[in-house]
Amino acid sequence: MPQSDAIRTLSVALDERSYPIHIGPGLLSHADVIAPYLAGRQVMIVTNETIAPLYLEAFKRGLPEGLEVEEVVLPDGEHTKTLDSVSRIWDALLAAGFNRRCTLIALGGGVIGDMTGYAAACYQRGVAFVQVPTTLLSQVDSSVGGKTGVNHPRGKNMIGAFWQPKAVLIDTETLSTLPARELSAGLAEVIKYGLIRDLEFLAWLEARMDALRGLDGEALREAIYRSCAIKAEVVAADETEQGARALLNLGHTFGHAIEAHQGYGAWLHGEAVGTGMLMAAELSQRLGWLTQDEVDRTAAVIAAAGLPPAAPDDMGVEDFLAVMRLDKKNIDTRLRLVLLRSLGDACLYDSTPPEMLESLLTDFPRR
Amino acid sequence: MPQSDAIRTLSVALDERSYPIHIGPGLLSHADVIAPYLAGRQVMIVTNETIAPLYLEAFKRGLPEGLEVEEVVLPDGEHTKTLDSVSRIWDALLAAGFNRRCTLIALGGGVIGDMTGYAAACYQRGVAFVQVPTTLLSQVDSSVGGKTGVNHPRGKNMIGAFWQPKAVLIDTETLSTLPARELSAGLAEVIKYGLIRDLEFLAWLEARMDALRGLDGEALREAIYRSCAIKAEVVAADETEQGARALLNLGHTFGHAIEAHQGYGAWLHGEAVGTGMLMAAELSQRLGWLTQDEVDRTAAVIAAAGLPPAAPDDMGVEDFLAVMRLDKKNIDTRLRLVLLRSLGDACLYDSTPPEMLESLLTDFPRR
Repeated sequence: MPQSDAIRTLSVALDERSYPIHIGPGLLSHADVIAPYLAGRQVMIVTNETIAPLYLEAFKRGLPEGLEVEEVVLPDGEHTKTLDSVSRIWDALLAAGFNRRCTLIALGGGVIGDMTGYAAACYQRGVAFVQVPTTLLSQVDSSVGGKTGVNHPRGKNMIGAFWQPKAVLIDTETLSTLPARELSAGLAEVIKYGLIRDLEFLAWLEARMDALRGLDGEALREAIYRSCAIKAEVVAADETEQGARALLNLGHTFGHAIEAHQGYGAWLHGEAVGTGMLMAAELSQRLGWLTQDEVDRTAAVIAAAGLPPAAPDDMGVEDFLAVMRLDKKNIDTRLRLVLLRSLGDACLYDSTPPEMLESLLTDFPRR
Repeated sequence: MPQSDAIRTLSVALDERSYPIHIGPGLLSHADVIAPYLAGRQVMIVTNETIAPLYLEAFKRGLPEGLEVEEVVLPDGEHTKTLDSVSRIWDALLAAGFNRRCTLIALGGGVIGDMTGYAAACYQRGVAFVQVPTTLLSQVDSSVGGKTGVNHPRGKNMIGAFWQPKAVLIDTETLSTLPARELSAGLAEVIKYGLIRDLEFLAWLEARMDALRGLDGEALREAIYRSCAIKAEVVAADETEQGARALLNLGHTFGHAIEAHQGYGAWLHGEAVGTGMLMAAELSQRLGWLTQDEVDRTAAVIAAAGLPPAAPDDMGVEDFLAVMRLDKKNIDTRLRLVLLRSLGDACLYDSTPPEMLESLLTDFPRR
């Protein structure tokens, strides 16, 4: 294990499903850290064609001796997040004769994490899994909270399960191979935590945005730690999204509409969420909750992170509404949105006047 | 609701996942009984081509007014218990625009129940479902305990989840349209409860076997109630099968081997379990735990239920062992079997001498 003062560890408190998140540089080559969390000797590493050449060998070398290690290398991209890909994981597990005490390890971004988690949730009705997220987005978002699943042609994440990992291993150095556009997409979720719950963290982010985009190790570790800590608090209070957890979806209803309309993968998830958060902020202003200055401040931090400040120019009002009506967050026929009561304080609101929503969708900049 | 003295209600105690089982004649036409358990207005009935013409209309007529009711009618049979069939349910839910507050209703036998439960477990990461089991096997087995899932070409129930129904509605009159062979298959699981845990119930079954096979309503209601009560006790103590719940698998390791070797559906599940229980009893005798008289008594009650007393004549010792080694109950490489310490008292045992198992598999009658 690398120098311990460079490692921070956080515990996600979910009773008997509690688990640790270890964050630090070089952790990926020290996979022995996860030895206590393996259910047995059988280990299946699930990764993709982009990550495998970069990190698979180094990760395997760091695993403890004496394990039976198999691997599945899937294609890369949001369009591969399907039930067919998960079936390939199940086929590999069965072909290897893996039993209920095997452990799946997700080595990759959010798509790999979501699919591996879902494969673990349903293999023989549930086996252990460990997350080793290699993108900023997956480090601060999908590695905490146990949401797993796949997309369906009719909607994102429509098939899935709540299933908690046994441990999460975050190596901040993997971000050095991450394309700048994906780093920005990850920063969208980091900014989200400040906007929904922690104004002081938002101010810290405004001050450290250049350091984060320049891959300053200490800044990254701090941003990831605080993001995971905020998400862990919210998830611990509401594991299966009956209430407070829905606040984590700030910007997501608008964002999902953009992703679905453009075709999954055309916009990165974080890019769509970035624009969606700005839309939510503008709607909050129309409701009288945010000032123009606060909306401008939101727009500035989103722009500083390198995220798009405008929606796709081929999306009309109806294109947004058609997708938003099917969104999971839309209970029965009432449209519930996550909005900002003030900066650092999100709320769920289901009484936005339809004409106000439509005029926001009409007026919001396109590009 | 029919005369209340004909209805018995049992509660499965699982904290906030607790649910009632209502048992009685004619309940299927009184689906208003489940009204308190519907999560919202959207209801998807999942059934098959055998059950739909018999009961679908009567069931729908009994539902409360004002619901949005959709249906999926799948083909019948164990060979249809696949991920593709479950995908058809998901497709139907999405095509109908059903949200997280919809309720799935399984109207049919164990295959429909297992698939519908799995579809509910994973639709938008989990929605409500209600079981209306129409076969004896599903009434006494799969309607209690929350095991859901599908088969994989390499093994039975390999993909699935633990997911509890909100309520179970058992109409004993549906057994009048059940083929005699399937009634016998259901009786195998009923006998199992006596063998593993309740010698008095076993004696009651020996005395009432003719009445049960003759569809005596009172005898059926009592047998179903006691079976569900025993299973509910075991499940409440061990929801996710870490320990005691495994005792419910008496006869299942041998039985799964028969089903897998013969091709799913050639032998009914209950038939394979019946023969498997006799194999477990004989192995228990070889370990010195049962007397010859007790084995004979086990054989007699299995025969009285109309179940096969011999294994398929084309199955050799290796055919059994090849499947048993992959069985979920086989943790790591040690073969764990459910055996009988005495009649009415099952135990998990992982130290059967291999040569004793092989000689049992060699000597056991074939037909």
